[in-house]
Amino acid sequence: MTSGTQAGVFAEVAQGADLAAATLHGSLVDPALESMNFLNEIAGRYPDAISFASGRPCEQFFDVGLIHRYLDAYCEYLTTERGFSTVRLNQALFQYGRTNGMIGELVARYLETDEGIAADPAAIVVTVGFQEGMFAVLRALRADQSDVLLSVSPSYVGLTGAARLADLPVWPVRGGDDGIDLDDLVTTVRRARSAGLRVRACYLMPDFANPSGVSMSLATRRRLLEVAAAEEILLIEDNPYGTFHSGEHLPTLKALDTRRQVIYIGSFAKVGFPGARVGFTVADQRVAADSGHVSLLADYLGRIKSMITVNTPAVAQAVIGGKLLLNDFSLAKANERETAHYLANMRRLLDGLHRRFPAGSPVTWNTPTGGFFAVVTLPFVADDELMEYSARAHGVLWTPMSHFYAGAGGSHQARLACSQMTPQALEEGLDRFAALVADRLS
Amino acid sequence: MTSGTQAGVFAEVAQGADLAAATLHGSLVDPALESMNFLNEIAGRYPDAISFASGRPCEQFFDVGLIHRYLDAYCEYLTTERGFSTVRLNQALFQYGRTNGMIGELVARYLETDEGIAADPAAIVVTVGFQEGMFAVLRALRADQSDVLLSVSPSYVGLTGAARLADLPVWPVRGGDDGIDLDDLVTTVRRARSAGLRVRACYLMPDFANPSGVSMSLATRRRLLEVAAAEEILLIEDNPYGTFHSGEHLPTLKALDTRRQVIYIGSFAKVGFPGARVGFTVADQRVAADSGHVSLLADYLGRIKSMITVNTPAVAQAVIGGKLLLNDFSLAKANERETAHYLANMRRLLDGLHRRFPAGSPVTWNTPTGGFFAVVTLPFVADDELMEYSARAHGVLWTPMSHFYAGAGGSHQARLACSQMTPQALEEGLDRFAALVADRLS
Repeated sequence: MTSGTQAGVFAEVAQGADLAAATLHGSLVDPALESMNFLNEIAGRYPDAISFASGRPCEQFFDVGLIHRYLDAYCEYLTTERGFSTVRLNQALFQYGRTNGMIGELVARYLETDEGIAADPAAIVVTVGFQEGMFAVLRALRADQSDVLLSVSPSYVGLTGAARLADLPVWPVRGGDDGIDLDDLVTTVRRARSAGLRVRACYLMPDFANPSGVSMSLATRRRLLEVAAAEEILLIEDNPYGTFHSGEHLPTLKALDTRRQVIYIGSFAKVGFPGARVGFTVADQRVAADSGHVSLLADYLGRIKSMITVNTPAVAQAVIGGKLLLNDFSLAKANERETAHYLANMRRLLDGLHRRFPAGSPVTWNTPTGGFFAVVTLPFVADDELMEYSARAHGVLWTPMSHFYAGAGGSHQARLACSQMTPQALEEGLDRFAALVADRLS
Repeated sequence: MTSGTQAGVFAEVAQGADLAAATLHGSLVDPALESMNFLNEIAGRYPDAISFASGRPCEQFFDVGLIHRYLDAYCEYLTTERGFSTVRLNQALFQYGRTNGMIGELVARYLETDEGIAADPAAIVVTVGFQEGMFAVLRALRADQSDVLLSVSPSYVGLTGAARLADLPVWPVRGGDDGIDLDDLVTTVRRARSAGLRVRACYLMPDFANPSGVSMSLATRRRLLEVAAAEEILLIEDNPYGTFHSGEHLPTLKALDTRRQVIYIGSFAKVGFPGARVGFTVADQRVAADSGHVSLLADYLGRIKSMITVNTPAVAQAVIGGKLLLNDFSLAKANERETAHYLANMRRLLDGLHRRFPAGSPVTWNTPTGGFFAVVTLPFVADDELMEYSARAHGVLWTPMSHFYAGAGGSHQARLACSQMTPQALEEGLDRFAALVADRLS
């Protein structure tokens, strides 16, 4: 070793290794992440198990030929509607691009068409999926140790991971049957402030939440916006599944937002396709610099994005832009077949549970009206250990809800995802799940 | 306002705004970043100025038709060489993918072909450009306030930005004419350790560095590896321009690395094309968990990547994969025309300077043998103010070298980029630059 009070990076490491994990960032040894990896490992170990664990979109409508069509449609738009020369077209697809993206106007037209959201394209940041937008927002909002984020609990792991990476603590707010317990929101905000903390925002998924499946009523949405205004907190709205609705389509928080209180994070992973990895953030909040100069939060997010990915791949933006153009900016229309599939699967899941666990059964569940997930409450602990046993002895995978709680919570609950299954697999999977329950109760 | 000791996020803000920039993360009000934005703004204000500021790749060989060809080539490879069914092919392009990427093996073959680097595909993380790899590495290495990064100075702004985002301080090491001053490296490591800090790594660009244009000799490379081993620090090697060489091709540090001391961050932005935004990191360091389990640093970087972008867009990976396949994994070969263009431009730039500032002139410059940049030393201060004057009065843009120094440095120097220029623009630009110098000296 060299002189000095501190050892080199290679020190204190077991024989044959170069670095100690304990010297890396805390997010890398997070118990929650370890546990998620453990679940993935189980899934890999039992490839023949039927999976209620995967919340991936259905695959039967994937077609590589579409990528070429989408690309062509976007190029056609640039040349005919936007008047691009061949040189400018080649530049747009090949060269570095604008940090906040080149399809902001197309995204704005989609938001107006499908969600009734009037978004200024200047307030839109096109990102590498939801995840980059989420991380950029949290990185921007976390200035020092006094900052804290609230999140409806149970929470999406992508939020938890991004917050961990930004060194931003997350305080849970009870979700409950309404999607958010507003009294608990107020209590939590005030408790954080009493502890000297600055509450930056509250994260939530008002439509078909992951993992709970719960949607907020219109009355709850309106009251939530009022509470957020009174308490002076931002709301971060995440809406990956909202498009797959049966016709009863409640307005998003952003559509109801008249005070620029809502940062809206959208994604084309489910309504476009995951392989494009294109998402976007609407951040129309006005930010005042010390100089007094006012610009949009989207501009600040762009500065962060320039240090993470520089810009979203032009090729990926072009493909999503083409899909929007070919479908008159309505992904609700583009996804009619997918929506029918998801809604039928959710009905099949809930009916199947009802048939297998009739009235009086100690097994209960909630009844989402859409989305990819439902939650089953069991009369016994549903933890990683049971999940491993379930995979091994009964050939069925699911996700312990405890993974989605920061502290205690969800100990007796399982999340069942039904987005990717065939009717046959779903019925067979429920038979296996019922066998697991019978096994455990016997 | 509500009760509590802390104000809401909307407080302390100028009339009409929603948030104060001062309450956001420090990277957003970084003077260096502000200054970069100022330069971009000047470039936007004088669109007719000839630019020696842009280090973008040349555009004359861009062709949208190639994207379709690259995509087809990659799909053909998956079906014929890898035996993918149509269903699996559609999945590969459309569905979520492996966090660390799907073209790792193709990237490994490219590294072997062009760089003589023997990389295990398992140690390769495919990223959204260089930038995501850089950020993931720094985020992993920054555990707490005692961590510090060293960087050869002057430094690439993408490194500085990523470090700022990871809250990781950067200590400069003198670059000088050899690309790194090894005595200063040792002194700086020891000074940091005496201050109780943990030196995580030293970042550098051994081939045609941005911004200095300097390359390291083979002797310096070998000695650097020895010093790094003795001092027990990692090296982070960045190599965006190395492929554009005239035949005298020195081995990269990673090719010489026998002790897993080098984290290699590559990018296809220049040798592929920027619009794909595909890069990669080779991180073969072995990391020991507390449990004693040893895995690769690449696995840990994947965990971070899963919280930033989930995975690199499949569409973008496929396009780069196709380009590699169509060129027998040699991007040196694929870029023969581009390399000829860059080398000719660099010669033209250096010859042009020589003609305009003959021996005895107070203007001097270095003589890079490749890359995109050269550095001119002037007998007066070359700051943002002069740059604005240069754009306005003489119609020529360049970059003050002071932007690439953390503290003092580069005050009398200008970076001239020549990658994107036509011969005519280059000559006319040098005339204007000479006029600026004459103006300033008169």
